Amino acid sequence: MQTTRMIVGVDVGGTNVVVGTVPEDGDTIYGFRKERTLVAEGPDAVVGQIKTMVESSLEEVGATLAQDDIEVVGVGIGSPGPLDTKSGVVLWTPNLGWTDFPLRDHVSEAVGLPATLDNDANCAIFGEWWRGAARGSNVVVGLTIGTGIGGGIVLNGEIYHGAGDVAGELGHMTIDSAGRRCNCGNYGCLEAYASGTAIAERAVEGIEVGAETSLPDLVSGDLSQVTAQLVYDAAHEGDDYALEVIKDTARFLGTGVANLINIFNPEVVVICGGVTAAGDKLFAPLRKEVRLRAFKPAVEMCRIVPGGLPGTAGVFGAVAAFKVQTWGAA
Amino acid sequence: MQTTRMIVGVDVGGTNVVVGTVPEDGDTIYGFRKERTLVAEGPDAVVGQIKTMVESSLEEVGATLAQDDIEVVGVGIGSPGPLDTKSGVVLWTPNLGWTDFPLRDHVSEAVGLPATLDNDANCAIFGEWWRGAARGSNVVVGLTIGTGIGGGIVLNGEIYHGAGDVAGELGHMTIDSAGRRCNCGNYGCLEAYASGTAIAERAVEGIEVGAETSLPDLVSGDLSQVTAQLVYDAAHEGDDYALEVIKDTARFLGTGVANLINIFNPEVVVICGGVTAAGDKLFAPLRKEVRLRAFKPAVEMCRIVPGGLPGTAGVFGAVAAFKVQTWGAA
Repeated sequence: MQTTRMIVGVDVGGTNVVVGTVPEDGDTIYGFRKERTLVAEGPDAVVGQIKTMVESSLEEVGATLAQDDIEVVGVGIGSPGPLDTKSGVVLWTPNLGWTDFPLRDHVSEAVGLPATLDNDANCAIFGEWWRGAARGSNVVVGLTIGTGIGGGIVLNGEIYHGAGDVAGELGHMTIDSAGRRCNCGNYGCLEAYASGTAIAERAVEGIEVGAETSLPDLVSGDLSQVTAQLVYDAAHEGDDYALEVIKDTARFLGTGVANLINIFNPEVVVICGGVTAAGDKLFAPLRKEVRLRAFKPAVEMCRIVPGGLPGTAGVFGAVAAFKVQTWGAA
Repeated sequence: MQTTRMIVGVDVGGTNVVVGTVPEDGDTIYGFRKERTLVAEGPDAVVGQIKTMVESSLEEVGATLAQDDIEVVGVGIGSPGPLDTKSGVVLWTPNLGWTDFPLRDHVSEAVGLPATLDNDANCAIFGEWWRGAARGSNVVVGLTIGTGIGGGIVLNGEIYHGAGDVAGELGHMTIDSAGRRCNCGNYGCLEAYASGTAIAERAVEGIEVGAETSLPDLVSGDLSQVTAQLVYDAAHEGDDYALEVIKDTARFLGTGVANLINIFNPEVVVICGGVTAAGDKLFAPLRKEVRLRAFKPAVEMCRIVPGGLPGTAGVFGAVAAFKVQTWGAA
């Protein structure tokens, strides 16, 4: 009987920790676990949480594949950055409040397995390259749209890290030099217009100046409860204003994607995260905006697609990154 | 006596054709030639012009190095694009008016030597990596600022081409989504603000609404004669308005460079072309704008420098590209 090597993928976020165990061919995912991140309790508590989740995931793997010959070889971790992949240290995470925390080695020690560390957005796009919507492409650029906008660049089957692991901050591309203030301190970043947070903010701003929409009723008048998801839902229900907010989002995203196409000439631009719930209401005007802005030959050879692994791209990518760091290739 | 292999570099532009012969170690340049491009006479005339210039350059090499054992191995050509490096065909050049022209093979046949073709801006930045201001760096991003703004990306000693040789159009990054119209059809491209043409245009726009400046006197009142170079000269002479135009240019360029730093996390951003004549009057506010906008860790590990090979970067880069296409490495 042949041994199947398994790798545990861990996707640490400001909101959730997601864990799953994946065979080295990436064919499926076992023992999927998702919990609220214990942010308030500090990094050591989060390491403890990861340990428990990894063990629980592996227990399920053991039970499910009791007849098989399995070897668990390690843990691939994706975390918000900036971080140092070589030393495995998280340098600084605004969402988690960590500074110079050796996450990789702490997790490795806790679970008793080798571990690797890479940026969470890089991992999500790497997962999409390995097993998702960008499979088989040599030039992949992707955005992960949630609270903020992360980015990942995958060239010839490897995450592009730049000179010091800080590359791929695609959400912090300025698209309006005197535009909206971004959390990063800059003005006019793509993230300040098209992140989930920004979508909700823009929707509320329009309501405050009198837009006609069902949104206030949906939150019983408490506009602080308006979310991007609520905007998509309202648009699907035929709310014209919500649809307009999505179209504006598509134009902003289209500007950013056009820039990425002119810069990278990619085969695929993959867009991950909750925003893809808006479906063609988002992607149709987005593709139109890109065609208006980017160079035709580059546009013609590029697919712009939603992610194919909602909820698990980061786990798959963390596993693929473990493979690259450990064995040289995914 | 050891044989020195020599490669002829040809930089074809909408304004000039530049030719020089370079030993394979890139140590120097022989037989430098520069002529106005015979644009109006069509591509075959330009091939004839290149043939004459290459032969003239090689004659000088022969005379200069009569005592040496020399082998001329080929011609590296840089040309405006989009083009196809594999087939050596220029697909379309707005400045020259060529469509689907097999420039590489026509030049090769005319001069009786193997030839290679790559994009002119790519070549300029590759030249800066090989023998200029970005020497020894593994992650290099560069802008060539002239009539327009070209770009080049050099990763691990190779030009980054993307999926189909159309990558690196860094001048067509939108920095103001509803901004100035660009020649490419898009609105708000970096090129529409910071190219030589755009610098002159912005200067004239200010004069037309009453700016106090020496510029109109310098062109005897004919504002169509205002050039970017004239703006730099006036600034050096203490013209406050001209200095303001350069500072605005620095802010626009700084926005674009900040984007490139957040995206690529480069070791060096190299800025080539006439605009570097503005010196610290440009680079000081440019670096300041970058620090305001880009991520600190990425800014800290990046040098922002003027090109080190004014007038010859494209020739050196075309030679280096010949080496990569022919022998696998520069």
